[in-house]
Amino acid sequence: MLKLFYAPNTIALASLIALEEVGADYEPIRLDFQSTEQQGASYLKINPKGRVPALVTERGILTETPAILAWIAQSWPDSGLAPVQDLFAFAEVQSVCAYLCSTAHVAHAHKMRGHRWTDDDSAKQAMTSYVPRSMAAAFQYLEDEVFQGPWVMGEAFTIADPYLFTIARWLEGDGVDPEMFPKIHDHRTRMEERKSVQTALATQLQT
Amino acid sequence: MLKLFYAPNTIALASLIALEEVGADYEPIRLDFQSTEQQGASYLKINPKGRVPALVTERGILTETPAILAWIAQSWPDSGLAPVQDLFAFAEVQSVCAYLCSTAHVAHAHKMRGHRWTDDDSAKQAMTSYVPRSMAAAFQYLEDEVFQGPWVMGEAFTIADPYLFTIARWLEGDGVDPEMFPKIHDHRTRMEERKSVQTALATQLQT
Repeated sequence: MLKLFYAPNTIALASLIALEEVGADYEPIRLDFQSTEQQGASYLKINPKGRVPALVTERGILTETPAILAWIAQSWPDSGLAPVQDLFAFAEVQSVCAYLCSTAHVAHAHKMRGHRWTDDDSAKQAMTSYVPRSMAAAFQYLEDEVFQGPWVMGEAFTIADPYLFTIARWLEGDGVDPEMFPKIHDHRTRMEERKSVQTALATQLQT
Repeated sequence: MLKLFYAPNTIALASLIALEEVGADYEPIRLDFQSTEQQGASYLKINPKGRVPALVTERGILTETPAILAWIAQSWPDSGLAPVQDLFAFAEVQSVCAYLCSTAHVAHAHKMRGHRWTDDDSAKQAMTSYVPRSMAAAFQYLEDEVFQGPWVMGEAFTIADPYLFTIARWLEGDGVDPEMFPKIHDHRTRMEERKSVQTALATQLQT
């Protein structure tokens, strides 16, 4: 059985939702970020990066959200979570996932994880205070250039949907009004109506 | 025919090398970063993000290096640039590409692109001065936990090789001694012996 290591309100939510979407048999394993369990010796054997998510499969352990999501979509091709038979359409989904990973998520990370890029406290504060602008810029691009509707990639619900949804849930906490992005805001509401999302959010609440 | 928009010494080199590896019929189109051509109205129609690479295909335009590299590997399956028939092995390659994209490349970006995350000049300077440490940390992880040898993923040369190579070439400029990472340093030397790499590097030198 698959095991997904996660922590609440992290990017691991995207993988939780995708596993629910395909009906995977998996065990969610919660890490306690308050006690920095993700940096403990036990978890570092699972993921030396000390981050979530990590997906334990019978073949080995996968990390990095774009890789996990694409693996889920390819492993359950009938789910339609990615157009796995159409290489260009699959690449378009992967392009959106890469942007979410390397630009949108990274913008958010500057709020609390500035220590990755400086040890200067005033620089960390400067990064934190800029997050509303960098996140708004990323979401303006997503709203204007990426989001096709009704789902991220158009008519088909794909792995890009839980990925965008997970990061969009951080907007208020990052000081951005989500109503600045009407299409993505409406997407969030519709995502919350899906059973997969409700189950994944309930999993996050468990202790 | 494919067109690849690139600029010298950017992450676009990885895609140039991959296109050479598969023997693709493509036209490299150089952008002049000195005159910020990548931010000009003409190029923003190609890639609204104003970055390179962008790959123009008969189906449309692809951006984001992990998506472009995976598309090349999947489109030329006989090249062996990724284990496209083995979903778990493919996901492992994708995981490495996602790490290079979102952590290693992002660490490097803090040297010159701090304006993405702050408008405070002293914070930008603090970011720049920390790059030797954040890049060294990323490469220590790559050296210790990722690199299998003789190629990144082991016996098979994959898209992860030009991707790692391209970022490893930035180490000196980022204030990191590449000899701290003997396996990756040796990999760089062997990469430079490949015809694909020599052709791609020669392309970069053309004006």
